[in-house]
Amino acid sequence: MSATFDPALRSWVDYHTDSDFPIQNIPFGICSRLPETKPFASSRIGDHVIDLAALSRLGAFEGLAIPEGALSAPFLNDLIALGKVRTNALRGRIQEILTKGSPFGRLTDSREEWLLPVDQVTNHLPVRIGDYTDFYSSIEHATNVGMMFRDPAEPLLPNWKHLPVGYHGRASSIRLTGHSFHRPTGQLKPEDGPPVHGATRLLDFELEMAFIIGTDTELGDRIPVDRAEEHIFGLALFNDWSARDIQRWEYVPLGPFLAKNFASTMSAWIVTIEALEPFRTAGPSQDPEVLPYLRSSGKHNFDLDLEVLIQPEKESPSTVCRSNFRYMYWSMAQQLAHHTVNGCDVHVGDVCASGTISGPTPDSYGSMLELSWKGTREVPLAGGKIRKFIQDGDTVILRGHGKREGVRIGFGDCAATVLPAKPI
Amino acid sequence: MSATFDPALRSWVDYHTDSDFPIQNIPFGICSRLPETKPFASSRIGDHVIDLAALSRLGAFEGLAIPEGALSAPFLNDLIALGKVRTNALRGRIQEILTKGSPFGRLTDSREEWLLPVDQVTNHLPVRIGDYTDFYSSIEHATNVGMMFRDPAEPLLPNWKHLPVGYHGRASSIRLTGHSFHRPTGQLKPEDGPPVHGATRLLDFELEMAFIIGTDTELGDRIPVDRAEEHIFGLALFNDWSARDIQRWEYVPLGPFLAKNFASTMSAWIVTIEALEPFRTAGPSQDPEVLPYLRSSGKHNFDLDLEVLIQPEKESPSTVCRSNFRYMYWSMAQQLAHHTVNGCDVHVGDVCASGTISGPTPDSYGSMLELSWKGTREVPLAGGKIRKFIQDGDTVILRGHGKREGVRIGFGDCAATVLPAKPI
Repeated sequence: MSATFDPALRSWVDYHTDSDFPIQNIPFGICSRLPETKPFASSRIGDHVIDLAALSRLGAFEGLAIPEGALSAPFLNDLIALGKVRTNALRGRIQEILTKGSPFGRLTDSREEWLLPVDQVTNHLPVRIGDYTDFYSSIEHATNVGMMFRDPAEPLLPNWKHLPVGYHGRASSIRLTGHSFHRPTGQLKPEDGPPVHGATRLLDFELEMAFIIGTDTELGDRIPVDRAEEHIFGLALFNDWSARDIQRWEYVPLGPFLAKNFASTMSAWIVTIEALEPFRTAGPSQDPEVLPYLRSSGKHNFDLDLEVLIQPEKESPSTVCRSNFRYMYWSMAQQLAHHTVNGCDVHVGDVCASGTISGPTPDSYGSMLELSWKGTREVPLAGGKIRKFIQDGDTVILRGHGKREGVRIGFGDCAATVLPAKPI
Repeated sequence: MSATFDPALRSWVDYHTDSDFPIQNIPFGICSRLPETKPFASSRIGDHVIDLAALSRLGAFEGLAIPEGALSAPFLNDLIALGKVRTNALRGRIQEILTKGSPFGRLTDSREEWLLPVDQVTNHLPVRIGDYTDFYSSIEHATNVGMMFRDPAEPLLPNWKHLPVGYHGRASSIRLTGHSFHRPTGQLKPEDGPPVHGATRLLDFELEMAFIIGTDTELGDRIPVDRAEEHIFGLALFNDWSARDIQRWEYVPLGPFLAKNFASTMSAWIVTIEALEPFRTAGPSQDPEVLPYLRSSGKHNFDLDLEVLIQPEKESPSTVCRSNFRYMYWSMAQQLAHHTVNGCDVHVGDVCASGTISGPTPDSYGSMLELSWKGTREVPLAGGKIRKFIQDGDTVILRGHGKREGVRIGFGDCAATVLPAKPI
């Protein structure tokens, strides 16, 4: 177990034991104080946000070689680029400051300057995202989709077990949890006629995890699979919103485009891979054996419970999916080794998402496409409501956390609300 | 004809009539003086580079509301974001300064401060590219590929004539003309066995044009097709390098990924869409009629001759392809209207490439895949050499220009050299 996870650690800040943000988490984000807009690097404990720029000005990070500019930038990229040695030291120092009986008494006395109730701040997108890649790495999801649209007897395409299939997505339309967006319009192809321009009828979520790249590589560099996690700064929840009818018509032969790039939603706090160490677990066995550049030793999956809720307008949320990040067939380490085997360069702040994370049981499927089995089954919500796909006014909420030895490390909500389509 | 193209305009700077960069062009780029590295916004005339930051310091752009910071940044994004009214005024002022009998005599007297021979500067990537999209908009190219890999009788997929097929590419691996890169390795699938990790054997170029976005839109905004060109700052040549064997194995069902993202090459100078006005021409007629959001009036194709040369190490270059940008079935205006019909946001510096631009005759095909018809034909080079795909040491050079009334507006070279694969 990593030294970053001490279940006995206690903070002088009060929080509920079921908080996603105990003193063992200490994630990173970007916030500003309401109603101001000046952003600052932040962490979080319980229901409080930690203003790292203010702490820095108070001398809290002396000796850590963290330039104050990296903490008062609008994105975390400059901070992350300092490297894990320094950002982990920063996390450790924050934990020391927050620990009961902290040796940093001067700082706890001035807590009002840097410890802010969450309702007094607003979050911003934590990183300037250069490139965004989406994988397709859940065997249950790929199998379900293959059964629906291809061959129920041979649902996986021949390449699927040999490489982590992935494609490039749109970085510009990734938004922070809490946003809303208009139902997209596009070309829809009726069975029996020419395509029409209309609002998607099959709007869907995809339950995903994303990892954020922590280093810059040069064009031509390969990241070896056993060193890949050194290049991962941390993780977030990710909803890869999808319009199934637009996708079905447009996606051959070059993949999804307008079916995905109208919006994606990311949670606000980047949980470091170090904070997730206690949840490491082995992935599924891979048969056939993968090529040497994808072979890794050790445990590279993570046991994180995931959940999706649908909240109709002015109603309570209902859980429609319970899954787990450990189901991934391809690990993040394998994804990153594959991504760079051809020399593709990656950069601090790049985002790689997992693909829909479905589990083995029907209640663990990570999309409405699978939960409603292409619209043939009704998914029940509270109050007798049902859904096959996502309706206007619905808020979709992803949640995720690991729990071990009484300590819960989580991500906070990844939520977005669907507005009606704009008139055509 | 646009006022930006006066064939009678003459400069006091000498250049060859076959230069890509007459006074009528005035493209934009980023340069630094050798051996210094401080970048500045630049233009070009003949074999001279114009240091726009230096001109600004001399007061050349008074009254144009161009902040000097926008001319001394490492990318053109801030300059472009000022909008076409101002950047066109800047182009006009540069032309006035360079005109024979210029009223800006004080500046012509101090020309050594801002007019630099091209061999005294180096170019840099002109824009910080947020997102990169690649289309597939040449009907000849899509037909050729469909004939080779799908159905010779029905080579186009059902969606092809209804929408400009496109997909997201990798922004990070786009490099400036003059670079070199290692032949990529990746998974190759022999006909009769499991996949292996090896260097691509089928390395290819794709002759493309790229347009650079000139405005920011909000998520949810649609760009109407008849206003789309207002959002295009300018154009460049683009080589979408492709590894055909990697692509064939990986691309189902989500499109090309490692087959493309190891490198793309862009020419150094962004030629404004205004400089290309004289070359406007009608595109091919579109049958079936496209949906209303893709219907445009006027001429939206451009008559630009394009050429691809292969230069083996220490040999002379040989032309292997002569094509023309006017062949595009889908115009840039249609591509951009389609890209945003679902509300996808675009931003200054985003790059949209055309897809391979093939013409109707075999010598106009824009890739080795087509020129060698999947490796079944030999493409002759000078000195008795032949090629089916691109070899180590080869430099591939794209060129393009329009010519009308004795004035040639061109792009300069878009060239890159292939190095041997790194050891596996």
